[in-house]
Amino acid sequence: MQIDRKDTNDIMSQAVVHGETVYLSGQVSSDASDVAGQTQGVLGKIDAMLANVGSQKTRMLSATIYLADISTFSEMNEVWKKWVPVGACPARTTVEAKLAAPQYLVEITVIASC
Amino acid sequence: MQIDRKDTNDIMSQAVVHGETVYLSGQVSSDASDVAGQTQGVLGKIDAMLANVGSQKTRMLSATIYLADISTFSEMNEVWKKWVPVGACPARTTVEAKLAAPQYLVEITVIASC
Amino acid sequence: MQIDRKDTNDIMSQAVVHGETVYLSGQVSSDASDVAGQTQGVLGKIDAMLANVGSQKTRMLSATIYLADISTFSEMNEVWKKWVPVGACPARTTVEAKLAAPQYLVEITVIASC
Repeated sequence: MQIDRKDTNDIMSQAVVHGETVYLSGQVSSDASDVAGQTQGVLGKIDAMLANVGSQKTRMLSATIYLADISTFSEMNEVWKKWVPVGACPARTTVEAKLAAPQYLVEITVIASC
Repeated sequence: MQIDRKDTNDIMSQAVVHGETVYLSGQVSSDASDVAGQTQGVLGKIDAMLANVGSQKTRMLSATIYLADISTFSEMNEVWKKWVPVGACPARTTVEAKLAAPQYLVEITVIASC
Repeated sequence: MQIDRKDTNDIMSQAVVHGETVYLSGQVSSDASDVAGQTQGVLGKIDAMLANVGSQKTRMLSATIYLADISTFSEMNEVWKKWVPVGACPARTTVEAKLAAPQYLVEITVIASC
């Protein structure tokens, strides 16, 4: 089965398509200094990446959400709720984990159908 | 490829079927206050969800186990060992992560064939 | 769809093949006491496992990297960069998480095409 990669550098590809499944790299955002703003930024990046492989948020299969501080769960969740398509939400897992740089408060990894 | 979702609310779906692969949301349990009891509760939920999409534990592909305290690894593992089908265990990753609420001691995310 | 498992014990399988997708268990290494050496060990194990199912590192779809201490990110990344095939890198997520035993500094979970 063919593998198609997008936005590939010497470390990772931002999206890897395998048949009708696309794996995105974990997305972070430096658009804002709070979780709500960063979540908005991350979800915008996910929209763009899914569009780039002919997919969209209604075709998400799973999302893994890493929060630098789990006490920000509800702030992240408010932004998420406004963004996910009603009736077409992915499976989801949310846990706390320190991220690659201290300014990052949320990282989201998505698998989708394309 | 068609996407079929089960137990969908405004945030997530508990199971998302894509072709012959099903992605479950991370499962937690408030059945007990110790890791062994919560693991039992989580595995029971996974059994029910897999059944709900025509799958079963012998068809699990991967499991990611998040423990709020990694020192409870062996307590979780004892319950896991009694539950997983000999000769048909999934790939597995176990790490420590704080979970969505402090009462949760273990969360398990499964991908299976259906 | 058939499921084919490799290196299965009573807890997990090191690799589970489902159609043209293979799920590997999270890999750790006790070859060295520093992150660079352990990363090298882990990547060597991944090479061997992928070979065992007729795949290879150019066919990786996603990698999730767990570091016991996120401040070792660049040491891990240097080894990773030398190993991943230019132009064929997987999607990647890197977070901090305590691992199953304190001597483990890095764990990597891979999904690949085979």
